[in-house]
Amino acid sequence: MKDNRKKCLAIAERIYDLDVEVYRCVGSSLGRAFTSDRRTCVENLVNLMIESPKGHLLRSELAMISNMARTIRKKEDRSRLMREYDNILKEIATLPTSFGRVDIVNEKRARLNTANLHQKFKKDDHMVICIGRTQGSAGNDIGFALADSLKVNYYDVEIFNEVLKRLEVEREEAYGIHDHVAVDQNQVVMDNKYQKGFEATHGIRRRLKEFNRYHGLTKADALFFYLSDLICQKAREEDFIVMGRCADVILANNHIPHVSIFITAPFEQRVNRIMEVQGLTYKQAARQLKLLDKKHERYFRHYTGLKWGAAENYDICFNSASYGIEESVEIIERMLNQHLHTGS
Amino acid sequence: MKDNRKKCLAIAERIYDLDVEVYRCVGSSLGRAFTSDRRTCVENLVNLMIESPKGHLLRSELAMISNMARTIRKKEDRSRLMREYDNILKEIATLPTSFGRVDIVNEKRARLNTANLHQKFKKDDHMVICIGRTQGSAGNDIGFALADSLKVNYYDVEIFNEVLKRLEVEREEAYGIHDHVAVDQNQVVMDNKYQKGFEATHGIRRRLKEFNRYHGLTKADALFFYLSDLICQKAREEDFIVMGRCADVILANNHIPHVSIFITAPFEQRVNRIMEVQGLTYKQAARQLKLLDKKHERYFRHYTGLKWGAAENYDICFNSASYGIEESVEIIERMLNQHLHTGS
Repeated sequence: MKDNRKKCLAIAERIYDLDVEVYRCVGSSLGRAFTSDRRTCVENLVNLMIESPKGHLLRSELAMISNMARTIRKKEDRSRLMREYDNILKEIATLPTSFGRVDIVNEKRARLNTANLHQKFKKDDHMVICIGRTQGSAGNDIGFALADSLKVNYYDVEIFNEVLKRLEVEREEAYGIHDHVAVDQNQVVMDNKYQKGFEATHGIRRRLKEFNRYHGLTKADALFFYLSDLICQKAREEDFIVMGRCADVILANNHIPHVSIFITAPFEQRVNRIMEVQGLTYKQAARQLKLLDKKHERYFRHYTGLKWGAAENYDICFNSASYGIEESVEIIERMLNQHLHTGS
Repeated sequence: MKDNRKKCLAIAERIYDLDVEVYRCVGSSLGRAFTSDRRTCVENLVNLMIESPKGHLLRSELAMISNMARTIRKKEDRSRLMREYDNILKEIATLPTSFGRVDIVNEKRARLNTANLHQKFKKDDHMVICIGRTQGSAGNDIGFALADSLKVNYYDVEIFNEVLKRLEVEREEAYGIHDHVAVDQNQVVMDNKYQKGFEATHGIRRRLKEFNRYHGLTKADALFFYLSDLICQKAREEDFIVMGRCADVILANNHIPHVSIFITAPFEQRVNRIMEVQGLTYKQAARQLKLLDKKHERYFRHYTGLKWGAAENYDICFNSASYGIEESVEIIERMLNQHLHTGS
């Protein structure tokens, strides 16, 4: 404890001296962070270093000195003082109570995160990117373009339904069961994604019953769990991008590495886009948008217990209105360190 | 209109042929997207292309074909078919009603965005990064470390108060006015950031009255507008990082380019961090966190009319629990195309 105080005192002296030097080089008393006498200032600094609850004020003091130091005209002076500043920062980082000392990282979450640079990947980990998005935010377009650019598979609800149907057909053929589903294979359109219209569920449900595994669940729930298995299985096999389906939460619960991204844009912007894409009036577009967003929100809450679209539930949220489709893809790639071209 | 249909028909034929080819190369009928007869399938595809509301289903169909094409073992076949796939995508992009045709970008917003790659910067535009953050998310630590890494100035509420105080002193000295504020210069601690405790406001307020400019406003409002001017002025002069203070909205309203980032982390994670940093119990930490978050929320809503922390109001939201302090800095730098080191 006494040792720590001694160390803090030494650092405080250096900070005070740095401020004096910066002041001398800048040549204005307004450049000084500390205007009281040396003893008072050094004591205040030591207290800031020791009282961790107010430790962040030390950061502000230091920032003020370095902000000022950067304005020094003479290059040698500037370099010399910025070096001393860096050294002081390093000293402070070794204090047990320093600001920035307690990291925010959630080790469990970070381990699952494929953008985590310091993480050692196992050879068989795949890059799985889960994208949630609000209606009209062009999230699907960004996901599709990203998959195309990264040359990885792209899965959305229509494709999953198709995959499920085919697995079903395969299985039925193997068991010698025949079903009308097989005939409908190219009819992918499903208007009501969650509650009904899942042609695929017919056979699956029967199969689920056969397996005596998901007994007592609703059709939608059984399908969700079946899809969860499919997503986890794919994530062990290949790189891909998956749109929605709570894939991020499913993968996290199964301890499978992935990145979760949420794409949105301001309401007005999204309404305008839907109006243009679908040729609707403002009122129609706004109504459709709210309806579909609410549906997604309910689906997400039902299966994860979490708030859909809340920033804390994703690794990164992205405002597509700030960047547009093409550039969103570029920024996500750079962020994931997957950008192959040299940036402009 | 007829020309468009003809073009769609040509593309649909190519898609169907591609599917047949992919199927032949993969060697499984389950690889086929289309299982009905050629005429029916092509007609369906043309309709998908023309009916823009369901245009996104075309994207899913194409993704299914390309997902399958990527599994082709023979490299020459795979390259040949992926090239054809890329060419088809390019053809579709020229259709007036194609998916991805209507961008989501808000031109006004994008123009202000310094991460916007395609934007032509004027020589005198500066890189201003506005960071909002929830309590306990280590947002300040990330902002400070980012400023240090980018070698730009860092401003937070304490520094702004100090700057305001000094400007005040300068001005008073120029006018021959003396004030007790000048004596207090090194007392930076301000416990109640928004409502009271602004020693700086004393002289400023008087000055504001002198200028007869902000008459009728509350002290807090006058200070806010004064700070807004200061932020805009700085943004015209230098690169910097600014924490909170609604700086993003202020700059947007003044048409000054910037990037807005919001940093948060799950509640539990943040409470744990505050407990560790400040040596509080869970209950104390949770209470403090909620109180300060609410304060920030109110402040933001009061001055911007917007919801604090809602993803659509920022360019990017960031979950610090997924990355930790050091890596958050790296990812933000990469995203901004400011990362100098080669990625790991």
